[in-house]
Amino acid sequence: MKTPFEHPPLADAEHPATRWMGLIEYDGTNFEGWQSQPQGKSVQDALEARLKFILRSDIRVHGSGRTDGGVHSRGQVFHLDAHWPHEPERFLKALRSGLPPTIRIVWLKPAKPTFHARYSVKRKRYVYQLYLGFAPPDETRYRWSLGDLKVDLEAMEKAASHLRGLHDFTSFVASNGGEGRNPVRNLKRLQIKVKGPRMSITVESDGFLYKMVRSIVGYLVAVGWGRVHPDETPALLEAKVRSERVPSAPARGLFLEKVFY
Amino acid sequence: MKTPFEHPPLADAEHPATRWMGLIEYDGTNFEGWQSQPQGKSVQDALEARLKFILRSDIRVHGSGRTDGGVHSRGQVFHLDAHWPHEPERFLKALRSGLPPTIRIVWLKPAKPTFHARYSVKRKRYVYQLYLGFAPPDETRYRWSLGDLKVDLEAMEKAASHLRGLHDFTSFVASNGGEGRNPVRNLKRLQIKVKGPRMSITVESDGFLYKMVRSIVGYLVAVGWGRVHPDETPALLEAKVRSERVPSAPARGLFLEKVFY
Repeated sequence: MKTPFEHPPLADAEHPATRWMGLIEYDGTNFEGWQSQPQGKSVQDALEARLKFILRSDIRVHGSGRTDGGVHSRGQVFHLDAHWPHEPERFLKALRSGLPPTIRIVWLKPAKPTFHARYSVKRKRYVYQLYLGFAPPDETRYRWSLGDLKVDLEAMEKAASHLRGLHDFTSFVASNGGEGRNPVRNLKRLQIKVKGPRMSITVESDGFLYKMVRSIVGYLVAVGWGRVHPDETPALLEAKVRSERVPSAPARGLFLEKVFY
Repeated sequence: MKTPFEHPPLADAEHPATRWMGLIEYDGTNFEGWQSQPQGKSVQDALEARLKFILRSDIRVHGSGRTDGGVHSRGQVFHLDAHWPHEPERFLKALRSGLPPTIRIVWLKPAKPTFHARYSVKRKRYVYQLYLGFAPPDETRYRWSLGDLKVDLEAMEKAASHLRGLHDFTSFVASNGGEGRNPVRNLKRLQIKVKGPRMSITVESDGFLYKMVRSIVGYLVAVGWGRVHPDETPALLEAKVRSERVPSAPARGLFLEKVFY
């Protein structure tokens, strides 16, 4: 079912490149994250390899930001510069057809030359999926199963209320990354939803630090399990140091849901 | 989160074994099917290894029937004979806790000694999941994406109506298996449902031949794509020989949904 297409001429002075933006979903299970890796096992590598095949030149793809290995996307946005003389719809088809099924480009369209997938970001939304009990096998790649342990939702809600808003999130950054970045972030949304055994935690902010969402989720679950009291949250934020009270939730439950520009 | 338990005494004259039956769900993606394999990569192998660890003896697990590599289960039933002197609930917990997350035992309970997971089967239901277009990445392991090609639903319905009921299904058996079995089966249900881009085909019968469901689904899709005319179906059944008009649908869309006893 490959779409036949003529190889377009390379971009040059006569054939200027256009800026394109696209929305890309992926199942991160078998990728080493979004960002290009020496071993070439990232989503970006898969996209760039496909672009090279179509356009016969090295095209760099810029994402809205990284996602770690095992993290999924329903809303990653990227941009690239390429000369494509045919209809835009055919560019999308050509790009799609050679990608693995765990990657889906939802749309691709010409963008303003000033648009930048990373620098133009205004806000991002992540959703973390959990399961109270043991998830059905076809959901285990996309949810963190909390098993038999009881979860105190009220305590989680209370801890969440302490985290919302403008804070220094140093205590919720993985210690092996994110040094030197401004740790003050505005957590505009932190919402816990429960529907039967399925729980989701939606987090929205103008910016995220390294593994911040997984740290927040890991902490909320630790509170839900009674390992930390929710009223300890303000002191934890104040301490500005990562501690054992803030475990990281596994990557598999995390989705980059939407990027706002 | 392992459940602590005392090792039960081995079954012997003083400690007779009980027959147990259980419902098991699994994601077949990374298993070589249900049935025990020399390499030990089947679901049955995983269960038997866990039983050996708990009961310190070789316990044989009997399923309602095989499922091929890559085929999933929401309704596989098994039985086994074991002596378990504690509460039944603890047997379930002990069995569950050491299995990979892609296997979930839903329940486990004592059964009548005459119950046999395979011989007592009255009817089975399979569901095959498809996607009209390209499935979202987190559904690709559980659906067959039909891509850009248009599908004629009316033609599929017509072909399905020819297949329902009592027929010799030799034309819908994989040529490399099922020889010597009675090829006459009563297809009590063959239902195509569409909800947005998601299609499911439910098949119910008193018995299935080797790869029969995937052959029926592959054929219905070939009809939907206009490669075979639905009115050719009666002649195809009459021919009693597997032909190229009956391709096999990929394993990943198939679920053993329910076993009736």
